[in-house]
Amino acid sequence: MQSAIERCGTLAGFSEEPGFITRTFLSPPMHAVHARVREWMEQAGMSVLVDAVGNIRGSYPSSRPSAPRLLIGSHLDTVPHAGAFDGVLGVMLAIALIERLNGRLLPFGVDVIGFSEEEGVRFGEPFIGSRALVGDLCASLIATIHDAVVAFGLDPGRIMEARLTGDYLGFLEFHIEQGPALDSLGLPLGVVQAIAGQSRLEVVFEGVASHAGVTPMSHRRDALTGAAEWISVVESESRAIEAAVATVGCIEVSPGAANVIPGAAVCMLDVRHPAAGVRRDLLGRILHAAERIAARRCLRVSFAQRLDQPTVEMDPALTAALERAVAKSGYPVHRLSSGAGHDAMILARQMPAAMLFVRSPGGISHHPDETVLPEDASAALEAGHAFLAELERAHA
Amino acid sequence: MQSAIERCGTLAGFSEEPGFITRTFLSPPMHAVHARVREWMEQAGMSVLVDAVGNIRGSYPSSRPSAPRLLIGSHLDTVPHAGAFDGVLGVMLAIALIERLNGRLLPFGVDVIGFSEEEGVRFGEPFIGSRALVGDLCASLIATIHDAVVAFGLDPGRIMEARLTGDYLGFLEFHIEQGPALDSLGLPLGVVQAIAGQSRLEVVFEGVASHAGVTPMSHRRDALTGAAEWISVVESESRAIEAAVATVGCIEVSPGAANVIPGAAVCMLDVRHPAAGVRRDLLGRILHAAERIAARRCLRVSFAQRLDQPTVEMDPALTAALERAVAKSGYPVHRLSSGAGHDAMILARQMPAAMLFVRSPGGISHHPDETVLPEDASAALEAGHAFLAELERAHA
Repeated sequence: MQSAIERCGTLAGFSEEPGFITRTFLSPPMHAVHARVREWMEQAGMSVLVDAVGNIRGSYPSSRPSAPRLLIGSHLDTVPHAGAFDGVLGVMLAIALIERLNGRLLPFGVDVIGFSEEEGVRFGEPFIGSRALVGDLCASLIATIHDAVVAFGLDPGRIMEARLTGDYLGFLEFHIEQGPALDSLGLPLGVVQAIAGQSRLEVVFEGVASHAGVTPMSHRRDALTGAAEWISVVESESRAIEAAVATVGCIEVSPGAANVIPGAAVCMLDVRHPAAGVRRDLLGRILHAAERIAARRCLRVSFAQRLDQPTVEMDPALTAALERAVAKSGYPVHRLSSGAGHDAMILARQMPAAMLFVRSPGGISHHPDETVLPEDASAALEAGHAFLAELERAHA
Repeated sequence: MQSAIERCGTLAGFSEEPGFITRTFLSPPMHAVHARVREWMEQAGMSVLVDAVGNIRGSYPSSRPSAPRLLIGSHLDTVPHAGAFDGVLGVMLAIALIERLNGRLLPFGVDVIGFSEEEGVRFGEPFIGSRALVGDLCASLIATIHDAVVAFGLDPGRIMEARLTGDYLGFLEFHIEQGPALDSLGLPLGVVQAIAGQSRLEVVFEGVASHAGVTPMSHRRDALTGAAEWISVVESESRAIEAAVATVGCIEVSPGAANVIPGAAVCMLDVRHPAAGVRRDLLGRILHAAERIAARRCLRVSFAQRLDQPTVEMDPALTAALERAVAKSGYPVHRLSSGAGHDAMILARQMPAAMLFVRSPGGISHHPDETVLPEDASAALEAGHAFLAELERAHA
């Protein structure tokens, strides 16, 4: 039987682009992925269905009738030119966990899910798979994906049926960390406490475009030098706060000619911290700095909020059970927060959610060089097994 | 008779775009401009021709046979959405100068020229008009402009004949300053000593693109924060040097997404100073700073030179005559250098060249709000008249 890591390698072969792993929402290679995942799920004793947004769901029965269920999984879609493990590893570990039960039933059912869409590549809307489970797909988004659903051989009229019903103990997601924290500490696993909130704003500096050759330095109202000074402050302010990150990911200047002083600079700012108050304070300082710099340089500055996503806390009880499981498996319990969004953030709206990070060597993610150490996958599996035991004890 | 400023207003009505002044090389409205300019030149006693690149040339005879000639002029083309005076004022002042002779002949001939192309808008190549006079149009550029020349009703086969022959005393160009120096000093006129050399380089910072949410500040190799730090140094280094200007006019980051740390930042740097040594030293310090910043941040930086235009000194003797003329007209002699390129820079290859700047209120240029004060145009005309008297005395 293949290991979870080997199976990630198998699924990596199903791609929209030869030589790369690129597998977006409901793309043709997802059929082959479903075929293999279905085979592994059925061999492990699950009954399998693909819902109307393309989530593949394996259902492992309970030892008791009408018992609640536990949901475990992650996503099967990828970014373009992805690694083999982001999302996929979480689904493969969930299947391996059921295989390890060797047919033994638990006092609760287990659903293993491979979400069809998390990355938001195909339609610019992330989490379509998990949002379908919590009933968060609006009519316009359903209209947008309609043709893709039909082309994949599914029935858009049944999307509402993808919504979860019944009693769930919670959701557990295994995922690679995608960052360097665990690797730099030499730790295989991390227990996610919260998924960091995120502020995204467009910040526009406006000055006066003028001739680069004839406008003395002292007479300039250069939007770009103002923005540059501010970008340095964004960096220094966020460096000063533990666990904060702030990024200017794009900047566009106009008119944008070699011999013209920039009259405007449009920047996109992204600020994250697991604690909402800290994030808001940091953002406030960053925006205040922009105003101060603009005033001193006779520039105008304006802000337009693009995203204000609150922090999502993982469920304390389920997370405590996960921490006990990590400890009982013999691994250090390291608590951390996630800077990236995950399906667990969506499921947390409807049920207790917990999340276990697996070390990303070098912190490399969304890149063909993304890897996972076999011993770390084993550690995650051990911890997952102990987690099931924790829940079994609680529901005995 | 219209004043030079009134005539600039008249020509401003001949445009490719209603509501704006836009008149590029050999565009249809240039026919109407030529018709009016020809009329004014002929009324002043000049014989007029349009050469094969579209320069309009008025020839005012000398009192002696085979005497040398003086060339006076500027350009008649404009940038899109231009003001009424950039270039045009220099041609109108030259005509007014001949009118003021009232038919009196000088011991040298005077050619008044309205160059067809200086701004480089239509074909991305500036100074086509003046380059034709000094024989600096290569075969590929002639091929590029061929159809435009034909469409304007001219004969591309005769472009080589546009080249100046015979004995010239020199070239005098009147031009608005386009910058704020004269205005801030309260002076109507400035005598150009040199046209500043210019270095233009593409400066590329390369880091590692990674996830803005999961990459801690301490692990980043952010190309944009490196570029931002460097842009601040470009500004501070050039501010520290009298008459130096340095500009980053464009910056492009990639991948350029709100949630991705920039992996590369491509900047265009423009550095100018009238003294070649000072410009080279300043550029050296700026590039050294880029290397230092990149090394500290684990970025790579590379430079590609795009332009290295040497400083062009105006002719000392002709400029001294112009300074005497300004003084004799009762105006303060203010010496300055030009940060922008001008036709005088091209003519200087073949004959002594001198240049007189007229105050630009507010330093506004390449903009519909560009203006000239009537008293400043009169001052330029007075000084031009005294300049002719200086040359007359020298060639008596």
